[in-house]
Amino acid sequence: MTNCSKTPPISKRARASTCPIIRKLLKLAVQNDIISFAGGLPSPQSFPIDRIEGAATTVLENSGTRALQYSSTEGEIALRKAIADYETQKGIPTVVDNIQIVSGSQQALDLLGLAFIDDDAPIAVESPTYLGALQAFNLYNPKYVSLPTDEYGLNPDLIDEKFRGIRFAYVMPTFQNPTGLTISEERRKKLAEKAREYDFWLIEDNPYGELWYDKEPAPSLRAYAPERTITLGTFSKILAPGLRLGFIIGPKDAMEPMTMLKQAVDLHTSTFSQLISAHCLENNLMTEHMPSVRALYRSQCQAMLSALQTHMPEGVTWSKPEGGMFIWVTLPKSINTDVLMEEAIERKVAFVPGSAFYAKDPEYHRLRLSFVTVPTDKIEKGIQDLAQLIKEKL
Amino acid sequence: MTNCSKTPPISKRARASTCPIIRKLLKLAVQNDIISFAGGLPSPQSFPIDRIEGAATTVLENSGTRALQYSSTEGEIALRKAIADYETQKGIPTVVDNIQIVSGSQQALDLLGLAFIDDDAPIAVESPTYLGALQAFNLYNPKYVSLPTDEYGLNPDLIDEKFRGIRFAYVMPTFQNPTGLTISEERRKKLAEKAREYDFWLIEDNPYGELWYDKEPAPSLRAYAPERTITLGTFSKILAPGLRLGFIIGPKDAMEPMTMLKQAVDLHTSTFSQLISAHCLENNLMTEHMPSVRALYRSQCQAMLSALQTHMPEGVTWSKPEGGMFIWVTLPKSINTDVLMEEAIERKVAFVPGSAFYAKDPEYHRLRLSFVTVPTDKIEKGIQDLAQLIKEKL
Repeated sequence: MTNCSKTPPISKRARASTCPIIRKLLKLAVQNDIISFAGGLPSPQSFPIDRIEGAATTVLENSGTRALQYSSTEGEIALRKAIADYETQKGIPTVVDNIQIVSGSQQALDLLGLAFIDDDAPIAVESPTYLGALQAFNLYNPKYVSLPTDEYGLNPDLIDEKFRGIRFAYVMPTFQNPTGLTISEERRKKLAEKAREYDFWLIEDNPYGELWYDKEPAPSLRAYAPERTITLGTFSKILAPGLRLGFIIGPKDAMEPMTMLKQAVDLHTSTFSQLISAHCLENNLMTEHMPSVRALYRSQCQAMLSALQTHMPEGVTWSKPEGGMFIWVTLPKSINTDVLMEEAIERKVAFVPGSAFYAKDPEYHRLRLSFVTVPTDKIEKGIQDLAQLIKEKL
Repeated sequence: MTNCSKTPPISKRARASTCPIIRKLLKLAVQNDIISFAGGLPSPQSFPIDRIEGAATTVLENSGTRALQYSSTEGEIALRKAIADYETQKGIPTVVDNIQIVSGSQQALDLLGLAFIDDDAPIAVESPTYLGALQAFNLYNPKYVSLPTDEYGLNPDLIDEKFRGIRFAYVMPTFQNPTGLTISEERRKKLAEKAREYDFWLIEDNPYGELWYDKEPAPSLRAYAPERTITLGTFSKILAPGLRLGFIIGPKDAMEPMTMLKQAVDLHTSTFSQLISAHCLENNLMTEHMPSVRALYRSQCQAMLSALQTHMPEGVTWSKPEGGMFIWVTLPKSINTDVLMEEAIERKVAFVPGSAFYAKDPEYHRLRLSFVTVPTDKIEKGIQDLAQLIKEKL
């Protein structure tokens, strides 16, 4: 902050945002010769291009001036209503006023940070947790508290007095990123009780809930504590990430500050994208399109699990997800996956090192694999090459 | 921050964001019976719906999987290149690396706040200035310094030692919001010199530069100080606001922190919107579509100026813009436009009270009129009703 600098200083938070790993990965993902299990890019095969083209044409022809005009910060009524109806139909009564539309669920994470985090305010996250959430929350300088976990995921029995006064607990109860784990109904219920007992918001990030393979997962946390659960959803995994469309569902008193803040950060989300998505939802997207996406990812998950079984040496273990996009791999402690990544990239295969997913006390012998981007035949090849590298290191 | 609260507290910045006037106005704007000169909603007549429909179809058919997939945080190369080429063609050499795509230029304001403002860091703004910029910057708690202005707009001659150490000066040199004023080439050059002399970034917000009526305005501040000017642009006024698409142009060292921060707040802007807009730019949007938008707004501006001339009582004065969307009206000091607004709304006409546009020391006897939303015949009627109300108050 000296006056002799040639250009004025950037903010403390900008200085702290050193080039994040996710940026590097998004760049790698567009290099064609790498088999990337790193990014969570949905398979292009899963995009309903014709459906979206039909919706875009219909929307522009029937309500072009509306689709291209400014909209309200909360979002288009048609889309909010379609989401509210879908939630209600799944058994959790939801109205339009419970819904805030956002520019992808990453923006929901930013709004949560803006709305609930002051300097050094405590928030709780799983360990490991979604790295994009850490990046978003870090801008507002919280103090992290780790939620207790075991091999079944988050264990609410161990939430105690130490969690009183936290602003929120950020959790991903279904097909967690990065572990792939899903917590039981019993644990969901207990978690809701703890949120009430210790007065904190439950932030339920649910990007993958619709990507189940054999049976629907346990209900949203909103089923157990609607008055203090804020659920984040996204169209990136059910329609297309390129539209940048997500939503927040929660009680009205939690939504108001986020709406006000969204107005300051980007006014509102694309009206055109919202009306396209509303049209898709109203025209059976969930019943006609989702089964094929689930089938596609189920087979890719199966392919990766088989390849791991075939190629990985003894001492390597992994999660067996029942949905979602990720497998969490644990290596012998002698291997540091930060180092392993550099070597893997030289062999044209990529993953995300586990250390990226910890708010504090990172573990270095784990890694995250995504099975949704790469087609089945390349999954086999990539896992074989990665397993070979690991064998050489042991 | 007591532990006995039923729900956890919201952040200080959320508590400070009381329901802002712009939100109320966006809501008013969709009530059909109000003649609203308040919001800066572009005329729906200006939207090239067919052009956008053609672009959407072409993009989905030729590069559907790309348009619907995640993209890089910086933005799609095709769009960044089209913008860089346009700038270069206007005489200011610009490359793709100088361009960051954002979700509307409101997001650019947020990224500037995130990247350059620490608690109590000084920044300079015009007085009056764009209220959306104040809302965005306020989240990061700056200390405001007022830039000197006179009847010709910002006066750089009076920028002195007191401005050394400010993070940036936020200015709108062309068809300013709210005053409609445009500063001369001489003042632009002097402003650039002052930015160098006192080591601050010049933030040039330029949403209306393409909306000139009779002749092109003076060049961007980048022409005079490319190494320390950051220019904000938007597609909201040349294509459609519903796409939520804007851009930042600046030297690479200024862009990097903003790119990193954008990645944390929303990953990237809609790929689909970006490719639609790139397609429109590549297919003569600026030469084929813009002349009709300029002609439309020129005639609406003319209609409002005539109506003001016909109906306003003595003692009321107003700016005569040569482009853009706004006229700034000064009333006798006995009238408080905050109060006047409530009464005007009862008579079904709306404007924005001047006090909303000041970072500090608001003036209460001014108001902003937008002439772009309401068709010509209603402009006459609305101004007549407003003038009648003002006459009654005098």
